[in-house]
Amino acid sequence: MKKVGICIYKLCEDLWPITRSITGKGVRETLNIIKRHLPNLDVHEVPTDTTCFDWVIPKEWNINDAYVIDPNGNKIVDFKDSNLHVVSYSVPINQTLSLNELQNNLHSLPKQPDAIPYVTSYYQERWGFCLTDRQRKTLLEGDYQVCIDSELTDGSLTYGELIIHGRSKKEVFLSTYVCHPSMANNELSGPTVTTYLAKWIQSQPRKYTYRIIFIPETIGSICYLSRNLNTMKENIVAGYNISCVGDDDAYSYLPSRAENTISDKIALHVLKHTHPDFVRYSYLDRGSDERQYCSPGVDLPIASIMRTKYGKYKQYHTSLDDLNYISAEGLNGAYEVLQQCLECIEKNEIYRTTTLCEPKMDKRNLRPTLGAGVKLDKNFKYIMDVLVYADGKNDLLTIAEKLNVPMWSLFNNIEMLLREKLIKKM
Amino acid sequence: MKKVGICIYKLCEDLWPITRSITGKGVRETLNIIKRHLPNLDVHEVPTDTTCFDWVIPKEWNINDAYVIDPNGNKIVDFKDSNLHVVSYSVPINQTLSLNELQNNLHSLPKQPDAIPYVTSYYQERWGFCLTDRQRKTLLEGDYQVCIDSELTDGSLTYGELIIHGRSKKEVFLSTYVCHPSMANNELSGPTVTTYLAKWIQSQPRKYTYRIIFIPETIGSICYLSRNLNTMKENIVAGYNISCVGDDDAYSYLPSRAENTISDKIALHVLKHTHPDFVRYSYLDRGSDERQYCSPGVDLPIASIMRTKYGKYKQYHTSLDDLNYISAEGLNGAYEVLQQCLECIEKNEIYRTTTLCEPKMDKRNLRPTLGAGVKLDKNFKYIMDVLVYADGKNDLLTIAEKLNVPMWSLFNNIEMLLREKLIKKM
Amino acid sequence: MKKVGICIYKLCEDLWPITRSITGKGVRETLNIIKRHLPNLDVHEVPTDTTCFDWVIPKEWNINDAYVIDPNGNKIVDFKDSNLHVVSYSVPINQTLSLNELQNNLHSLPKQPDAIPYVTSYYQERWGFCLTDRQRKTLLEGDYQVCIDSELTDGSLTYGELIIHGRSKKEVFLSTYVCHPSMANNELSGPTVTTYLAKWIQSQPRKYTYRIIFIPETIGSICYLSRNLNTMKENIVAGYNISCVGDDDAYSYLPSRAENTISDKIALHVLKHTHPDFVRYSYLDRGSDERQYCSPGVDLPIASIMRTKYGKYKQYHTSLDDLNYISAEGLNGAYEVLQQCLECIEKNEIYRTTTLCEPKMDKRNLRPTLGAGVKLDKNFKYIMDVLVYADGKNDLLTIAEKLNVPMWSLFNNIEMLLREKLIKKM
Repeated sequence: MKKVGICIYKLCEDLWPITRSITGKGVRETLNIIKRHLPNLDVHEVPTDTTCFDWVIPKEWNINDAYVIDPNGNKIVDFKDSNLHVVSYSVPINQTLSLNELQNNLHSLPKQPDAIPYVTSYYQERWGFCLTDRQRKTLLEGDYQVCIDSELTDGSLTYGELIIHGRSKKEVFLSTYVCHPSMANNELSGPTVTTYLAKWIQSQPRKYTYRIIFIPETIGSICYLSRNLNTMKENIVAGYNISCVGDDDAYSYLPSRAENTISDKIALHVLKHTHPDFVRYSYLDRGSDERQYCSPGVDLPIASIMRTKYGKYKQYHTSLDDLNYISAEGLNGAYEVLQQCLECIEKNEIYRTTTLCEPKMDKRNLRPTLGAGVKLDKNFKYIMDVLVYADGKNDLLTIAEKLNVPMWSLFNNIEMLLREKLIKKM
Repeated sequence: MKKVGICIYKLCEDLWPITRSITGKGVRETLNIIKRHLPNLDVHEVPTDTTCFDWVIPKEWNINDAYVIDPNGNKIVDFKDSNLHVVSYSVPINQTLSLNELQNNLHSLPKQPDAIPYVTSYYQERWGFCLTDRQRKTLLEGDYQVCIDSELTDGSLTYGELIIHGRSKKEVFLSTYVCHPSMANNELSGPTVTTYLAKWIQSQPRKYTYRIIFIPETIGSICYLSRNLNTMKENIVAGYNISCVGDDDAYSYLPSRAENTISDKIALHVLKHTHPDFVRYSYLDRGSDERQYCSPGVDLPIASIMRTKYGKYKQYHTSLDDLNYISAEGLNGAYEVLQQCLECIEKNEIYRTTTLCEPKMDKRNLRPTLGAGVKLDKNFKYIMDVLVYADGKNDLLTIAEKLNVPMWSLFNNIEMLLREKLIKKM
Repeated sequence: MKKVGICIYKLCEDLWPITRSITGKGVRETLNIIKRHLPNLDVHEVPTDTTCFDWVIPKEWNINDAYVIDPNGNKIVDFKDSNLHVVSYSVPINQTLSLNELQNNLHSLPKQPDAIPYVTSYYQERWGFCLTDRQRKTLLEGDYQVCIDSELTDGSLTYGELIIHGRSKKEVFLSTYVCHPSMANNELSGPTVTTYLAKWIQSQPRKYTYRIIFIPETIGSICYLSRNLNTMKENIVAGYNISCVGDDDAYSYLPSRAENTISDKIALHVLKHTHPDFVRYSYLDRGSDERQYCSPGVDLPIASIMRTKYGKYKQYHTSLDDLNYISAEGLNGAYEVLQQCLECIEKNEIYRTTTLCEPKMDKRNLRPTLGAGVKLDKNFKYIMDVLVYADGKNDLLTIAEKLNVPMWSLFNNIEMLLREKLIKKM
């Protein structure tokens, strides 16, 4: 197993216990742990009531404890056991209720009797508990004591932003979210894989500047866009939303709204050559922050590469999406595909030959001087094919697609041709 | 059965007995009956010898009586029985002939022995009789008395024109023909369905101005174009030639010459969603007035929607294309498809969202405030999809095609989004 | 069998014995024989050491004799038996060697034990003999006398050029090569078919000017381009590289780099209608002078039509590619396809109708005056279809493709329509 996958999995374990929501201490604690890996991460706070396009930053929510005590005095639902037990953004309550009254505020999944569902009510004040349907069926008639020790106060929305400068002002954008409580594939895989991608990017020479953000989903991307739209529209040339990148079951691609941006073409190229059985979704299947990044008038070239897509695995948005559902191998696979995509974006230059007609390759010791019926070396054929299509118009991706080979199989040839001054970068 | 289909069929019965040709009293009588339904119909007369591009308006033809009396003194062919018995535009004759001489002027169909064929000779002076091949085979040797009481005189070509003004000067164009004698699908279905479409258009609020014409085929459309070309080229945005819209057997589509006008796209969209087994013809199969409307330099966006296409049913251009071949249901089906097309053309606007990023739908009570694993309402999904593609570039047809739903399934959503000021018309 | 094929085959026989290479007397002798058929052929000499883009004209190579005498005194390999026995451009040698030393300079094909391979060493001074693998296996231990009586001297590269002027300065370009010793399909078929095409072109009225060259492959095309690039880029509108056009086995098409030039479209059109089972190659399969003509910055619209492609038949580049492998029928077939392509290029005009709407065809006696149910003549349908698409934008090829008929089936109709002044050339 790859060492990076193990490290990513370890970071998932570190972040697992934290109670995150779209605001509050959980987000800050999560970002602090990530900052240990990425010291240059900037943490921003946006105050409650700030307007972001059609939205407004809500009150900040924090929770200390929550439980339900049954008629027999047993604590049957306890936030300390699972932070999914409380509806996110529940208002405080401390009250005794009949079973009937309690039922109106309970959430369970009859079709998945052993799963605690993940439920939120960010923008409507209410309270509620989530539990397994199996447990719910055992509840006795009588009076229940319910307590939620939470607070909704003016505060702020918190997000992390890391700018890694490159030679160019043009940017590659990576976005992931940190707003779900203890769930693994649809939460922790995203920020942890992104953290390790950022570490790798920092260690590499690079052409592009990288804009990498850790935000609460939806309100966070809307908020971030409302503060950075012009810069982003001016500079971003490619990017990915990173979510659900931890399981072993599949590789998935979801296009940008425009469907044919360089991010899309590179994602398809990499997946085709590395995991040809990947699942191809339509933009109609969208569901994460690409909804904002690709919205009309925003129009950023952001696609998504996932393992099993949100909503497409039964553990999704329940307590079953836990650390057993993801794996070091699963995380590592997504990490490598995204790495490959970023490398291809970096190296997708346009080249042009420096001479008219074929260059004389034998005088550079690049082909045998004896012309016989023997087949030419396969790589020599690729070299000549690159030269033929290096016309100052085709980018390297287009050339690789014409040759039906992975872009990375041409990197050495490109370096050699540059060294020999047979091509030049446009 | 739909009431409109019954009314259209009734109008076919009213028009059935009239002897029409490309000029003459039959056309005027037909237009007079239509004018009872469409009082604003203007009837135009274009004098004999008027030049229309490469053509000239011919003499006006009228006929009172025609018959053949056999050697035994029996009137065996009588225009009063069927106006198909006389070749249209036959010159007058009153003569006694041998059977051999007569045969040169007889027309029948050996392969359809019970059908009287429909034969014309508009531009070459001759005379002739049409009869069933079965009857022709019984003719005895001997002298025949033939009489055609017709006249070819300087007169005019007659056509009807109805302009229904809309909010815009831009026009939708409908053309149908009134030049065939007593035949049902390939004649009466066209003007009768068009009459009822015109009545419906007049009753509706509308964006476009409608130009609706009832003309003799070929010479009529050429004549009309020669008098109205500039206005038509400037204003017409869509339109259909309406012919063969009365039988129950099929739905057919024949493209404009350009093949991808809005008329084509809408026709395909409507037929795909209402009658997916429709027959798709090529422009190479053309045969009616689209030959003129789509000719080089005219280039109007005119497609055809038919039931069974002219030339594709065995009764075509014979006495068997009678009131039994068409039906109220058949007429009603074509009427509804054309109505749907016109409605789609009217509503095919381009919209643009009024906010960047997704609007906040819960504050408008358009989505539940509780975020749980439950599937969102299918129509809510369509609303969000419309918002995603309402980018100021896609028209509603394009959006419906992306969503793979009929345009009309989105009309209510569009109205709601306009009301909520979430989109605006471009 | 066609007379032209027999004549072309006869010319192959005349050229067969000559020892050609990329320079030297063999090329001159070949061109002299061709000049008997094409008296206007200009023979050009380009001196050794002339720079041509990245290349330099090499020394001129000539050879008088070459042989190997075995330990028993038998002349076992003799240039007089086959000029393939000597590696082309071998330096002179006259020496006694052990079998081991000799083996280093022998070339044979273990998988084709009865074939003498064709081997060259134009740009690296060495010597060598080629023989059948069967013979090689019989060589005895002992001393061998090897003699190559050749010379490498400052001289020139020779090529032939024929300009056949047309009404227009715009050019059609044909290129073929004269640098292989005695081989039939991959050498003699090319210049002989091209010679007879040139004779035919000279005999025809023509629109285009024809630039036809007989050159050594690779260095010859590079040299020719380096001297004529600007004129060629300015004037050439279409053209073909002519190689491997003598066998009976297949028809093949290899595109230009751009893939959709008029040369490509015409080649595909002609082959589709005459030899629908033709083999379609990719530009990745290129291997002859199209490598230069289509190189980036040169970008000429040059495609290839072949019988069996070089490298795709087992006799290729061996002594088995002899006069038995080609035939008069094979040569004739390629000749006719290329002729058809040139005729289509010549006649691929853009036309426009002279009247709006359909012209009145009966007044020109182009259709019957009686309108009856009878089917119209198929050719009349084609005439009307041509008129419909003659819109000043579609060229005749596009119209033929729309009608799915060979272009040449429309030539008579086009002439008639021009004569009737119903269309005009744009």
